[in-house]
Amino acid sequence: MKFQLTILGSSSAISIFHRHPTAQILNVRERLMLIDCGEGTQFQMSRYQIKAHRITHIFISHLHGDHYLGLAGLLFTMHLQGRKNELHLFGQEDLMDLIEMQLRLSNTQLKFNLIFHPVKHYLEEVILDDDDINVRTLIMNHRIPCMGYVFREKKRPRKLIAQKLKQHNIPFHVYHSIKEGKDFVDENGHRIPNAELTHSPMAARSYAYCSDTLYDEGIVDHIKDVDLLYHESTFSEALSERAAQTYHSTAKQAASIAIKSNVKQLVIGHFSARYKDLEPLLQEAKSVFPNTALAIEGKTFSI
Amino acid sequence: MKFQLTILGSSSAISIFHRHPTAQILNVRERLMLIDCGEGTQFQMSRYQIKAHRITHIFISHLHGDHYLGLAGLLFTMHLQGRKNELHLFGQEDLMDLIEMQLRLSNTQLKFNLIFHPVKHYLEEVILDDDDINVRTLIMNHRIPCMGYVFREKKRPRKLIAQKLKQHNIPFHVYHSIKEGKDFVDENGHRIPNAELTHSPMAARSYAYCSDTLYDEGIVDHIKDVDLLYHESTFSEALSERAAQTYHSTAKQAASIAIKSNVKQLVIGHFSARYKDLEPLLQEAKSVFPNTALAIEGKTFSI
Repeated sequence: MKFQLTILGSSSAISIFHRHPTAQILNVRERLMLIDCGEGTQFQMSRYQIKAHRITHIFISHLHGDHYLGLAGLLFTMHLQGRKNELHLFGQEDLMDLIEMQLRLSNTQLKFNLIFHPVKHYLEEVILDDDDINVRTLIMNHRIPCMGYVFREKKRPRKLIAQKLKQHNIPFHVYHSIKEGKDFVDENGHRIPNAELTHSPMAARSYAYCSDTLYDEGIVDHIKDVDLLYHESTFSEALSERAAQTYHSTAKQAASIAIKSNVKQLVIGHFSARYKDLEPLLQEAKSVFPNTALAIEGKTFSI
Repeated sequence: MKFQLTILGSSSAISIFHRHPTAQILNVRERLMLIDCGEGTQFQMSRYQIKAHRITHIFISHLHGDHYLGLAGLLFTMHLQGRKNELHLFGQEDLMDLIEMQLRLSNTQLKFNLIFHPVKHYLEEVILDDDDINVRTLIMNHRIPCMGYVFREKKRPRKLIAQKLKQHNIPFHVYHSIKEGKDFVDENGHRIPNAELTHSPMAARSYAYCSDTLYDEGIVDHIKDVDLLYHESTFSEALSERAAQTYHSTAKQAASIAIKSNVKQLVIGHFSARYKDLEPLLQEAKSVFPNTALAIEGKTFSI
């Protein structure tokens, strides 16, 4: 059961060196969730062979162009490809006004059900909770209202012990209930405790997406212990003043948030157009938090 | 003095096979004019080394996403790059409402002067006329209001005859007025007729952009004799019914417009995602109008 993040774009507002604006795909047990959707996201999806119809949820952080300008094009493409399955869109209220205007101007009635979930920019709350995943918003500290998202996988099923199942002649059709922790009771009323048939499940996995934001320790409590943290690192520490002026973070600051939050791995991205070589940003972050990687397009992080 | 068209994108609404949605650059005597601006146009410009600050005019045909979704991103990039020179934008009224909404939501006050010229979708008229160029709108026959644009270069200067200038000791500072057709009068009042010093100028050049449209002979009179015609060819003739239903043209129909209009060269584009190989579309058009070329990205047509 997958829980993996694929980077589609990680440049900041000006795209250069063939980098593309922010977009990521989170695969949660084969459900694809798109996080931000900068211009050209649909082309990046096609480059990395991600099928649009598999996306079930889209989360937009804020309304700076490099985080959402690819959304209308992607929706039009889904429509033209004859998408039937519903699509959940999470973002600030104004986003839907914009999309509705674009649909109206092109005289398009979407063939699929686009369900918009307005996200409150002043409140941190659970916006999605189902069998697989819990998603909570996080208030970023940016020039305009901006949200982060924390994805926490639901408890995973217990692991069956094949040898024990065979030994007790457990029929296949009850495997599912045993995975969920139930004991087995045979036709004679004889009970075999679940603990004898299964191992404890693997830990539920988690991912926190934090872009765009000033360095802000206020988020630490909310992203504590996540397996994977994406934190923007627009600048290097040498430009920390510029970072503060523009409500962005440095690589060192991202790493500092990672260490304070006790996350397992950090991915940095949203790189300024001034950095052709990203290695110095990576080294800067690693000097504080060694398990750091660059958000390189096409790269997948599996948890 | 250049008059050349560079193709940045020529796919129809679904982009596939690494083709990009419609965008073209018309270089008129070193002034760059952008015609349509599909998603990703700014990335295509960077691929083909076209500097955004050199664009002086943008013309948008209509508000289907594949013709304008790259505009907001391009404007944001120009702003972030510190553009100072004014930019003229031509398109239908609603386009500016959309752009203004996007600027407002991102809390952006453009650093340069964006001068919007609303184009009336029910009227064919001259929308630009200066020393270099005359631009006239053309009503396309499409599902939503859609404009074509005809670019006609202004009369070019007369060609100086170097040997004659030397023979009559014509001073350099009057070359400009002689190019414009004036006679030369020396300090003794002796007049040398312009016809003795110059050859007739090369003919003024012209380009007509027709996308998207149903086959419509109504445009023929307005594009008569142009040097270069771009006419959409979304489908092959085998799908002429589908073309009619969707208010698009076939390659054969585009060629038929070219022959009726007595143009010198035809470029076809706006290819449907169903055609990986474009050669059959080219051959179909060529069977009617031999001097046809495909709108391949990166290709430049010089007149």
